[in-house]
Amino acid sequence: MRVKVSVKTREVKAAIGSWIVAAMVTAGCPGAARGQDTFQPASTNVPNAEYPRIDAGSRIQFRIAAPEAHSVQAQVGAAPKVDMVKGADGVWTVTTPPAVPGFHYYFLIIDGVTVDDPASRTFFGYGKDSSGIEVPEKSVDFYLPQNVPHGEVREHWYHSQVTDKWRRVFVYTPPGYDTSAKRRYPALYLQHGAGEDETGWVKQGHANFILDNLIAAGKAKPMILVMSNGYATRAGETEPPQQRGKFHLPSAFGEELITQIIPMIDSTYRTIPDREHRAMAGLSMGSAQTLQITTAHLNTFDYIGAFSGAGFGGGPVNLKVDYSGAFADPAAFNRKVRVLFVGLGTMEPGFITAGVTAFNNALDQAGVKHVFYQSPGTAHEWQTWRRDLDRFAPLLFQK
Amino acid sequence: MRVKVSVKTREVKAAIGSWIVAAMVTAGCPGAARGQDTFQPASTNVPNAEYPRIDAGSRIQFRIAAPEAHSVQAQVGAAPKVDMVKGADGVWTVTTPPAVPGFHYYFLIIDGVTVDDPASRTFFGYGKDSSGIEVPEKSVDFYLPQNVPHGEVREHWYHSQVTDKWRRVFVYTPPGYDTSAKRRYPALYLQHGAGEDETGWVKQGHANFILDNLIAAGKAKPMILVMSNGYATRAGETEPPQQRGKFHLPSAFGEELITQIIPMIDSTYRTIPDREHRAMAGLSMGSAQTLQITTAHLNTFDYIGAFSGAGFGGGPVNLKVDYSGAFADPAAFNRKVRVLFVGLGTMEPGFITAGVTAFNNALDQAGVKHVFYQSPGTAHEWQTWRRDLDRFAPLLFQK
Repeated sequence: MRVKVSVKTREVKAAIGSWIVAAMVTAGCPGAARGQDTFQPASTNVPNAEYPRIDAGSRIQFRIAAPEAHSVQAQVGAAPKVDMVKGADGVWTVTTPPAVPGFHYYFLIIDGVTVDDPASRTFFGYGKDSSGIEVPEKSVDFYLPQNVPHGEVREHWYHSQVTDKWRRVFVYTPPGYDTSAKRRYPALYLQHGAGEDETGWVKQGHANFILDNLIAAGKAKPMILVMSNGYATRAGETEPPQQRGKFHLPSAFGEELITQIIPMIDSTYRTIPDREHRAMAGLSMGSAQTLQITTAHLNTFDYIGAFSGAGFGGGPVNLKVDYSGAFADPAAFNRKVRVLFVGLGTMEPGFITAGVTAFNNALDQAGVKHVFYQSPGTAHEWQTWRRDLDRFAPLLFQK
Repeated sequence: MRVKVSVKTREVKAAIGSWIVAAMVTAGCPGAARGQDTFQPASTNVPNAEYPRIDAGSRIQFRIAAPEAHSVQAQVGAAPKVDMVKGADGVWTVTTPPAVPGFHYYFLIIDGVTVDDPASRTFFGYGKDSSGIEVPEKSVDFYLPQNVPHGEVREHWYHSQVTDKWRRVFVYTPPGYDTSAKRRYPALYLQHGAGEDETGWVKQGHANFILDNLIAAGKAKPMILVMSNGYATRAGETEPPQQRGKFHLPSAFGEELITQIIPMIDSTYRTIPDREHRAMAGLSMGSAQTLQITTAHLNTFDYIGAFSGAGFGGGPVNLKVDYSGAFADPAAFNRKVRVLFVGLGTMEPGFITAGVTAFNNALDQAGVKHVFYQSPGTAHEWQTWRRDLDRFAPLLFQK
């Protein structure tokens, strides 16, 4: 028996009674026979949804009941849209070509309107709550929950004097934080990308499970992760609009981080509040923010992780003046900063690859010590950044 | 200038580049002139979405660009569907009749397919991530973040021996929990409704802000909240399918709570691990679970909150045998249980009203001490349950 989230189920006449129907769906019967195919429901599905599903070759099958629709397409991550085909029962289906392993945002396009798939959980990306699908990577489990001690992720609210708003951060405290009441920990500030928010590194990235697993294996020091919203605008101001090719970073996040978040974290959690025990990393826009903020505050951070983002402003890299001139004296930078990590997926889009490669080459030419990691076969997506974190975190706080 | 989440924006040809566009949307310009109307964007919108918006009379305006669609409707909570009207620009709009204050799930129905509104944040209800809209209640702020000390909400993972799965609970720790390292706290176990999950009481209910405000005002004792997923099935078993009129509760949640969650909480957090300092409450299905579990374990709980759910099994109430016979001796029950709270909205659907009223009448007739609270003008929705919690929490742990 297949329990599916169908139009019929969701469109019950009496909305008042539909919580009962929802209960029926949620409490339904998974584990039904699936014939001879090897397709399995995605782990990112809502409870008991059999579709979307994925086979051993990483092909994805989507399915939606839309008897009155004239066209339905599916779009997964950066892959081209695929046309879905309508069956006699009004149900549209498609099997995609093999997908790259990892997490992909995706959408359905129904009669020209881009919407979430009702069968998928949502994840904040593209400036909204978006469908997402987890494509397993064979024999790889560094980002999955294992039978090891787990840290906690805390939702913490604070009032910002910069934005004059209540803001939310998520703070990962490592296993043992509560029971070792006198122990203090180093902290890694970890930023999301454009159109994402402070939920991304846990929900999409599984940063908590990556750290749990690294700490349990003795590969990373127990540390605190701080995940903030990278958008911040001073009270009373507005952001200038973005223009293609002239991307600018949110105007006040650096000030927010340095003057609000870090002091709040250091006074709320048992950090070791010095530069030798503070790191910052980010992905894409968060990578550009990391480079911008850390190079302007080298007395605050000793470790820098730039995942898939550098040189967004276009134009050639000039390490004599770019990044607050922090690289102008390479020997001084090498003495000052313990780890600079630059990450890039081998399948990233051209403008990302160009920017990061130019930055990396400039570092090489100037003799700035750094680690350059290329994630094989992955694009501008979370599997790249999970791998970055899995390699960056073990380099931190080891002296 | 209005920045809207339009089809054009979301349907950029090059998905690879669309994170930049998302950034443009997210970093856009709110606060634009809105002419003479009083409509304001809902607080539940994605960043910078001007629609849906709400006026002082609680009317809601929805808006979506769907040039190729043939019909678009909006459905808010239990209200009837309303037809949206297509403009010459392909944009569909509608203004609803006045809505009841509080949080409502809602959907758009595009060419017969029920989907989320891309302009809304999502909230887990109806067995999926669903659009939601917060309609302000005039001069009422007990569930909004105030300038008071805030507790934390912790995401905590544990492995269940009952389900043989990793499960997630959310734990609210009150202000001062970390700084008063020796202080121990009472605990309230708080359950969601059918089709919802462990995120509901914070995301939809604002339970954390309600407790922050009550504690700051000295109206409620500082306490821990524990919010678990009410669906649990023993490893290797499957749930029998639900049938209309014969609703049954998830088969193993009681066992999960008593044998797994409570011992885990008591060994992980600084609770006062006795019945005098333990309460349970829930809404709808969670209310039925609360009555089922607490009455079967009166040596575990001293306080019981039943919000909008009793008598789901249909048929007359027989307090001599129902609920493990806990009410068979009313005097004994009155001596044993400090607070029994029964809540109901005055606008709830018939079968909910009938069940709760019959239960309440039976308690009256038997002489079982209890508090009966009727939430004026609200239905089977979160505003009812926020008010319940706001009234129930001050009754706890006061002796």
